Amino acid sequence: MTPRFSPIPASLPATVPFVGAEQMERGRGRPFKAWLGANELTLPPSPQVIEALAKAARDEISFYPDAPSHPLTEALAAHHHRAPEEIVVGEGIDGLLGLCVRLLLAPGEVAVTSLGAYPTFNYHVAGFGGVVEAVPYRDDAEDLEALAARARDTGAKLLYVSNPDNPMGSWHSHAAIATLIDAVPGDCTVLLDEAYGEFHTDPAAITPRDFTRPNLIRLGTFSKAYGLAGLRVGYALAEAPLAAGFHRIRNHFGVNRMAQAAAIAALGDADHLAATLKTITEGRAQLAQIATDNALTPLPSATNFVTMDCGRDGAFARQVLEEILARDVFIRMPGPDPLNRCIRVSVGTAEENRLFGAILPAALAAADKARL
Amino acid sequence: MTPRFSPIPASLPATVPFVGAEQMERGRGRPFKAWLGANELTLPPSPQVIEALAKAARDEISFYPDAPSHPLTEALAAHHHRAPEEIVVGEGIDGLLGLCVRLLLAPGEVAVTSLGAYPTFNYHVAGFGGVVEAVPYRDDAEDLEALAARARDTGAKLLYVSNPDNPMGSWHSHAAIATLIDAVPGDCTVLLDEAYGEFHTDPAAITPRDFTRPNLIRLGTFSKAYGLAGLRVGYALAEAPLAAGFHRIRNHFGVNRMAQAAAIAALGDADHLAATLKTITEGRAQLAQIATDNALTPLPSATNFVTMDCGRDGAFARQVLEEILARDVFIRMPGPDPLNRCIRVSVGTAEENRLFGAILPAALAAADKARL
Repeated sequence: MTPRFSPIPASLPATVPFVGAEQMERGRGRPFKAWLGANELTLPPSPQVIEALAKAARDEISFYPDAPSHPLTEALAAHHHRAPEEIVVGEGIDGLLGLCVRLLLAPGEVAVTSLGAYPTFNYHVAGFGGVVEAVPYRDDAEDLEALAARARDTGAKLLYVSNPDNPMGSWHSHAAIATLIDAVPGDCTVLLDEAYGEFHTDPAAITPRDFTRPNLIRLGTFSKAYGLAGLRVGYALAEAPLAAGFHRIRNHFGVNRMAQAAAIAALGDADHLAATLKTITEGRAQLAQIATDNALTPLPSATNFVTMDCGRDGAFARQVLEEILARDVFIRMPGPDPLNRCIRVSVGTAEENRLFGAILPAALAAADKARL
Repeated sequence: MTPRFSPIPASLPATVPFVGAEQMERGRGRPFKAWLGANELTLPPSPQVIEALAKAARDEISFYPDAPSHPLTEALAAHHHRAPEEIVVGEGIDGLLGLCVRLLLAPGEVAVTSLGAYPTFNYHVAGFGGVVEAVPYRDDAEDLEALAARARDTGAKLLYVSNPDNPMGSWHSHAAIATLIDAVPGDCTVLLDEAYGEFHTDPAAITPRDFTRPNLIRLGTFSKAYGLAGLRVGYALAEAPLAAGFHRIRNHFGVNRMAQAAAIAALGDADHLAATLKTITEGRAQLAQIATDNALTPLPSATNFVTMDCGRDGAFARQVLEEILARDVFIRMPGPDPLNRCIRVSVGTAEENRLFGAILPAALAAADKARL
């Protein structure tokens, strides 16, 4: 018997936005030597995080988490110079994106994003019966003017933009982002994904902590610079009336205790964050040099990954990717043309970056041979 | 400016199904001496769980979790004698209930439950625009015949039932549950919440591991007998076509790494579970004796809590609850009349149970005085 799903799920394909490294390893039958595909930090977290995790495991694990994530909310409020009422802690940006769509997009309404941007946003839009309008990148960056125009033209209720961008690593000035938000109709909420915000290199690109608009939701995470992707914790910053909406629909006890404890500890260890950012900056230069040494063009990056232009078409870059995977290094690549002339390599440890550099020449040669 | 929410969230009140112990402590300005209000295990988890958590914290925390929860799914499949395709791992039963409602209930459709049963189910039904039809308890147990009749009469698409029941601790035989499911129309999916299933005392009440129906979703959790409420991990058992629906809408990377690792370890330590169940059985008898010693009537319980009939009306039981809270022991009570003549006390350690026993006489005397 076919199950009787409600209309929106009944219309959806069984899909998954990403196939993870472990799932690929099970498919291949052997492990990767380096995971450089999901822009995860491969460096250890702060010792204070490890200590907080041990304490939570020992003392708190059998108790439901604190539903308002009160201490973490207070810590984030202090960190961002915002009121606690302007902060919503959630199960990573993925979970928060689902709540944003559910809260702000009715079935049939339009959400604007960039063609090739974060697929999990599109997954949630489809999942709640919305319609994705995707605007092509321009010069390997999100095209802010075209995004605003598409939002106006389609009467969109949501607009997704990231700064810095994934998968290209590009970025816009804060002034340009502010102009975008002010160019969008007031009934269209802008989701500004700042997952990579801690990695910014250009001071003019950093959104001021107190920057706010009634129709703006800023999204931050502990999965990238803080190295806690395994725990699932992120947050939204929004003006209080908008932030309050999340509490009508969120899974109140959904942010686990380990995540809350670790995030507070991570936020409190500024020295560890600074050391991480220094290591990432060095690793980014190391990967860029490896690319250049191999006649690939590293794109400028304000993130913890380097997107490398392979200089030919999407089929060639796909072949390069396959040859790298075959040599046991997990990386990914952008989907749509012309972004798909590139591969994307997350910054690992110096040793992992060297491993990538060691296998790259043979991978390129093999791809070249296959695609002659 | 008022934010522009989509219609269903716009119609919802800002609400929360439960106020947690920590939030109450912040409101009171002082901590409780014992948390016996949320049916959490206050015993330590398996040493194997602690070890798994330490390993995951050390080696895996910076990597996104395994999206299909593959090793945990395999372990659950072996444990329940089911195919892996019949198992969906999720962020606790709370998270899975939200997915069940989203998958199976269109806006305006009816979901049937018992009046006074788990409020988070009602929260999700309202959250997706559904309509709750609540059937009164009968003799402090869910009224299976009335539930089936209400589902038929209203054309309900979901029916929620728990066995054993929370908040009363009562239970039905498996035969009665099977009769209920078979009495419900095929386009109505039954959600059988077995959160307390490991505590069953009556062999005839245990649902066989391989019991299945096309319109049945069984829900299990690691939050109760396994003592991992802080981690957020539970699972649904359903026939493969129904289980597959969850993958269209779930947050694929939502079940954190610590939860997956701990759940596998917990499932593997049958001796620890047996020791836990023995301690809970003893504690349940201890709490029942304390109730009897204080002229309260302990209801029979197949769970890790004891619901105690205070012998008068809801206002009196409410006063008893307040007096117990004022003496720094956190407990809860059922909401609707006539269940609200009772208080509900989770089984703690022997010492915590004794603490409850020590403050109860004064709490009852104070309530008696206030309500004379």
